[in-house]
Amino acid sequence: MTELAAVKAALKTQAIETPSWAYGNSGTRFKVFAQQGVPRDPREKLDDAAKVHEFTGAAPTVALHIPWDRVDDYAALAAHAEERGVRIGAINSNTFQDDDYRLGSICHPEAGVRRKAVDHLLECVDIMDATGSRDLKLWFADGTNYPGQDDLRSRQDRLAEGLAEVYERLGEGQRMLLEYKFFEPAFYATDVPDWGTAYAHCLKLGEKAQVVVDTGHHAPGTNIEFIVATLLREEKLGGFDFNSRFYADDDLMVGAADPFQLFRIMYEVIRGGGYTSETAFMLDQCHNIEAKIPAIIRSVMNVQEATAKALLVDGEALAAAQRAGDVLEANAVLMDAYNTDVRPLLRELREESGLAPDPMAAYRADGWQERIVAERVGGEQAGWGA
Amino acid sequence: MTELAAVKAALKTQAIETPSWAYGNSGTRFKVFAQQGVPRDPREKLDDAAKVHEFTGAAPTVALHIPWDRVDDYAALAAHAEERGVRIGAINSNTFQDDDYRLGSICHPEAGVRRKAVDHLLECVDIMDATGSRDLKLWFADGTNYPGQDDLRSRQDRLAEGLAEVYERLGEGQRMLLEYKFFEPAFYATDVPDWGTAYAHCLKLGEKAQVVVDTGHHAPGTNIEFIVATLLREEKLGGFDFNSRFYADDDLMVGAADPFQLFRIMYEVIRGGGYTSETAFMLDQCHNIEAKIPAIIRSVMNVQEATAKALLVDGEALAAAQRAGDVLEANAVLMDAYNTDVRPLLRELREESGLAPDPMAAYRADGWQERIVAERVGGEQAGWGA
Amino acid sequence: MTELAAVKAALKTQAIETPSWAYGNSGTRFKVFAQQGVPRDPREKLDDAAKVHEFTGAAPTVALHIPWDRVDDYAALAAHAEERGVRIGAINSNTFQDDDYRLGSICHPEAGVRRKAVDHLLECVDIMDATGSRDLKLWFADGTNYPGQDDLRSRQDRLAEGLAEVYERLGEGQRMLLEYKFFEPAFYATDVPDWGTAYAHCLKLGEKAQVVVDTGHHAPGTNIEFIVATLLREEKLGGFDFNSRFYADDDLMVGAADPFQLFRIMYEVIRGGGYTSETAFMLDQCHNIEAKIPAIIRSVMNVQEATAKALLVDGEALAAAQRAGDVLEANAVLMDAYNTDVRPLLRELREESGLAPDPMAAYRADGWQERIVAERVGGEQAGWGA
Amino acid sequence: MTELAAVKAALKTQAIETPSWAYGNSGTRFKVFAQQGVPRDPREKLDDAAKVHEFTGAAPTVALHIPWDRVDDYAALAAHAEERGVRIGAINSNTFQDDDYRLGSICHPEAGVRRKAVDHLLECVDIMDATGSRDLKLWFADGTNYPGQDDLRSRQDRLAEGLAEVYERLGEGQRMLLEYKFFEPAFYATDVPDWGTAYAHCLKLGEKAQVVVDTGHHAPGTNIEFIVATLLREEKLGGFDFNSRFYADDDLMVGAADPFQLFRIMYEVIRGGGYTSETAFMLDQCHNIEAKIPAIIRSVMNVQEATAKALLVDGEALAAAQRAGDVLEANAVLMDAYNTDVRPLLRELREESGLAPDPMAAYRADGWQERIVAERVGGEQAGWGA
Repeated sequence: MTELAAVKAALKTQAIETPSWAYGNSGTRFKVFAQQGVPRDPREKLDDAAKVHEFTGAAPTVALHIPWDRVDDYAALAAHAEERGVRIGAINSNTFQDDDYRLGSICHPEAGVRRKAVDHLLECVDIMDATGSRDLKLWFADGTNYPGQDDLRSRQDRLAEGLAEVYERLGEGQRMLLEYKFFEPAFYATDVPDWGTAYAHCLKLGEKAQVVVDTGHHAPGTNIEFIVATLLREEKLGGFDFNSRFYADDDLMVGAADPFQLFRIMYEVIRGGGYTSETAFMLDQCHNIEAKIPAIIRSVMNVQEATAKALLVDGEALAAAQRAGDVLEANAVLMDAYNTDVRPLLRELREESGLAPDPMAAYRADGWQERIVAERVGGEQAGWGA
Repeated sequence: MTELAAVKAALKTQAIETPSWAYGNSGTRFKVFAQQGVPRDPREKLDDAAKVHEFTGAAPTVALHIPWDRVDDYAALAAHAEERGVRIGAINSNTFQDDDYRLGSICHPEAGVRRKAVDHLLECVDIMDATGSRDLKLWFADGTNYPGQDDLRSRQDRLAEGLAEVYERLGEGQRMLLEYKFFEPAFYATDVPDWGTAYAHCLKLGEKAQVVVDTGHHAPGTNIEFIVATLLREEKLGGFDFNSRFYADDDLMVGAADPFQLFRIMYEVIRGGGYTSETAFMLDQCHNIEAKIPAIIRSVMNVQEATAKALLVDGEALAAAQRAGDVLEANAVLMDAYNTDVRPLLRELREESGLAPDPMAAYRADGWQERIVAERVGGEQAGWGA
Repeated sequence: MTELAAVKAALKTQAIETPSWAYGNSGTRFKVFAQQGVPRDPREKLDDAAKVHEFTGAAPTVALHIPWDRVDDYAALAAHAEERGVRIGAINSNTFQDDDYRLGSICHPEAGVRRKAVDHLLECVDIMDATGSRDLKLWFADGTNYPGQDDLRSRQDRLAEGLAEVYERLGEGQRMLLEYKFFEPAFYATDVPDWGTAYAHCLKLGEKAQVVVDTGHHAPGTNIEFIVATLLREEKLGGFDFNSRFYADDDLMVGAADPFQLFRIMYEVIRGGGYTSETAFMLDQCHNIEAKIPAIIRSVMNVQEATAKALLVDGEALAAAQRAGDVLEANAVLMDAYNTDVRPLLRELREESGLAPDPMAAYRADGWQERIVAERVGGEQAGWGA
Repeated sequence: MTELAAVKAALKTQAIETPSWAYGNSGTRFKVFAQQGVPRDPREKLDDAAKVHEFTGAAPTVALHIPWDRVDDYAALAAHAEERGVRIGAINSNTFQDDDYRLGSICHPEAGVRRKAVDHLLECVDIMDATGSRDLKLWFADGTNYPGQDDLRSRQDRLAEGLAEVYERLGEGQRMLLEYKFFEPAFYATDVPDWGTAYAHCLKLGEKAQVVVDTGHHAPGTNIEFIVATLLREEKLGGFDFNSRFYADDDLMVGAADPFQLFRIMYEVIRGGGYTSETAFMLDQCHNIEAKIPAIIRSVMNVQEATAKALLVDGEALAAAQRAGDVLEANAVLMDAYNTDVRPLLRELREESGLAPDPMAAYRADGWQERIVAERVGGEQAGWGA
């Protein structure tokens, strides 16, 4: 196989999971702007996700969020997905939108609230059993707003205890992906604020517990690809929540704010052996002002482009320059791949796979957007918290 | 007058404006936690604000937010306030919660939306006429989320044009306070992101246009007291929106995150001649998880304590050490004031003014909280967006 | 002229000034690593700069730094430059490396130190007269390390006074470029910390005073292109000190850390009418570990590539999408230009100008590096502080 | 024992290690300002450190830095220290100031440089044997400035290998303290950038490997006390390098930039059981512009004051408020301790211990400063790199 053929082959295996909630309305604390044609139930979200996969060929699974995607019959929901050509992916828990969770969930000072939170997580594993999902994705909004509000260490103890109970419940082939976040909605201390904390907990839990990296969840200036390389070296990288940011957890389209960073991340994924199905590549974005389905298509394409560039890095030339201590040459080898316009290659690849070369144009031409705007009238639009 | 007497006299003049919206529910994009006893209309907000003033003696005015505090008869509302012992302060505009404002308000690409926004601002001046308010406080959520989304410079032109129309409408003794904010809800570019931009616009508008400093609206690491000193030197400091933050615009209680910074800010206010009624000292906070009225009382006390410490700085000793280039001694003079426990002084001051020495305890003993929880049943609780 | 021809024509006019000090040794506070072949006097720096221009065709001028480049006969130095095919550009002052400047220079509490600093700046204008330089570039390390150390406002007064004296001395066609910097070497307050402060001073000084934007001198997350757009709108953008950063003032090669940001900056320069000789495009970098001349060649190329991409933005399509409020399409138009591989275009351009298509390879093949390593033996290598 | 007696007893045990290098000259990359009377050899540094202990009673040990404090006879040096009333503390290695270390030390791509670095670390353990030091403190400047420059993961492998060799060499009762740092002098990737990386390495090495927290080595906004609490929970907190910062690794006097943060850190130390001799409380500061010995005395006092406040927290009241979920009350309990002026208590404590109540005044009155200025003439002043 020629090198380019190998790059293409690798790109053809790429699978990016889209999140059901990104198809619904979202916003900031100041305003949620409603859009026309937004799904009103989990099935309609899957319908939209199927369209993304139809035009990109790279988004075969859809993450659910419980309770936003709660249905009576998960097997039926999974069947609906498969009819549309996609599958259900990770199950995301939600322990932040009940009034009970004002002071936390799994780390809450009261045992009753912790019980409720853990029960919800166990329910999510039940749903995984029904949907055949591999991954339980855990993000905790837990934290405190004021120094002294609660005891930082006791909260860690409670966290460890809750996680252990859920871990025990995991079945064969199931995993727990633990997400960390620098801040928000907690503004003084967050109970899982950084990769180190997530890693320390996962290490004690066992092999099925893995860290998930949300690219928007770091302190300013953090070198994310270093964390990726480190977690891969420790065999603790479970996956990504992709999005991009200029400031905080802005949840913009992945690659929109710093495409070079996304390339560097994908380079470390590949270099560290993480470009496999063991790593969950997920989007987690909020399309507050832009059209949702096209934004998700664009996001999938952005990941593809970054991946293509990362695959094009001339590994031998790079290693040689690194060994020689030639700073400029080593950097140049990397930049040479980054500066390559990979869009023609990806167009070619799509055509080889029977797809339209330009997914954005194909979606526009498809009429789906007009159809959902016309048909999805009445009912309640899905959104954060719904 | 002894020096301490002068400090006390200065503290007795202190007036901190509380915002009507802080008495209502607030939250993050993830969740708004409702609290019991929250006001259901502008009058009830004023009732709560009056309680804060009753126990602190330092919160005589209340800022309104339009349309959240829209009423048919503003004169009657002002009369209600005065009956309760407070007055109506600044009028805050809102150009971010209508669907029309998805891409901005006064900077929006469409003239129609800009017209609507400017009309709203003009309406706010009408309300000022009715309430006798001096200050129109303008914060614009305007900005863009993606590079290229709109033309940065054209947006500045539109901003200048809209502000000029509103400035012309201001009456005798009325002012326009222009707020800046680093980011949120816009995540790529904000149209008034820093004090320099606000200053440049105010300079062109004229004397009635002044900059307002929200202590939570800066990039990480920004030296806020430097900005205060500079704006005072330029005679362009209109006032403050006080709150505190560990990360972004966290809107925690002022002084909670970095009490030393609040002290330094108050020191520069005093040193620069800004400790007068020409400077509007306002709170702008979100009490997402803590009880609202006590949190506002605490915030007023925090400003008082920082001010007392700043007033206690030995100016002559400081100047002497500065002139001598004695770095450690100059710093020590400042720290000596900061390290002083001013709570006894403030307790004494309150007693001299016929107040209870401990406002928090006095509020707890008063029964107001129990009363509003019992009585404010039914109706719709006030909150951001309501 | 076709559009591509216009792009090429614009690129052919590009002139990037390289700084004499970047050819010398530099480092961090921890260590300055000496390199072989580094210049030992100003002439040798100009020789190296001439090599950069020889291979890029885009670096016709060289900034001097006084006293590091102090010579007896500046006219002779200018003649030496012209013999080598380059000209002397901006004169950079240095008011931070004398023991007298421990507590500042132009803002120092003692009048004697301020006098010395202003005298140095006046000397720099004398040198400009001799070299025919247009621009006096002023960066002040002035600031304080501890709260209270000195009076923030008095320091502004001293700054204004000193700048005014120097401004008066400027001749016909001479300008003063005032640089701002977030922090370092001062760690509490810097006397010109942001563009707003530089702008306010320049505004009062007059037309010949302009702000210079060092791309590494901002708080984390600052939107630099917004500042560029704003300064151009205010007719106060004097120029750039280009470099790049991941953290603080890292002084890495421009475009190395965030090439997308550099593209956005160049886009705003062009859009705002700043792509003319009135704007000084200068490099200000430290090549601490990489070979200096090749690093500077690479930096010039990085600016060229960003400029080429910015010139390729389809202005009409962009404006149409912006007017329509089509967030995704407007962003896509911008990204389309950014994602273009402009290296073939630039190679072509160089060949049309009689240059080698690949400046890096041409420099390597030239033998200059080997020659300077061999010949520049003995004497004292130039470096920061020498 | 009354509660206050317990607080006093705890304070009397406090031991803060001062670093030999802080007595020498230091600066930024722009300038090192020399001061009069600065030590010229390790003995003179110990003499100065002894003065700090003489007046504070809380600085009984002195950290050495090799090679800056290299002597022929370490036993004699230790004896000199004890004569002066202090002891030698941690041994700090230096693998960043040789030309060989341009691309790293223990992580360098070349085996020869790595060997040299590891040999130096082993030499440091030899010195520990001679001085009776317990702790080897390791800070690595290793990292890369440009993406691609070296392989992130291979550098981790080299790091692990080198550390393992040194760990094996540690004797009974000896420890390895591994420091992390966000950035500087490396500007793209640092090989031990965060506590997670240090923790992961220490975990594999074993019990003698512990993490050291330098309070200036974090990303903006990082909650340092959370890290302290977490490391104590993991039994991996080896100690502190205290200093303070407004921006980056400013190395200002501890407590100068954010005294509230220092208090919160000390609170977590005490709460987590870390207020014992197992935790090394060290200063690591640069007194670039202020007088060195008084600055160090002030720093010791700042730590004492923060500790006193932290000890005064009413643990039962705090726990009760936390259990009750009373956010404001819990915060108030903490703030009550913070707002207490503990200087009278510390003055009392000093007098009980036979010390002057005001160490700063006592040092000024002592005449030591005048003596060293007069006597330390000739020779070469110590400084970073000397």
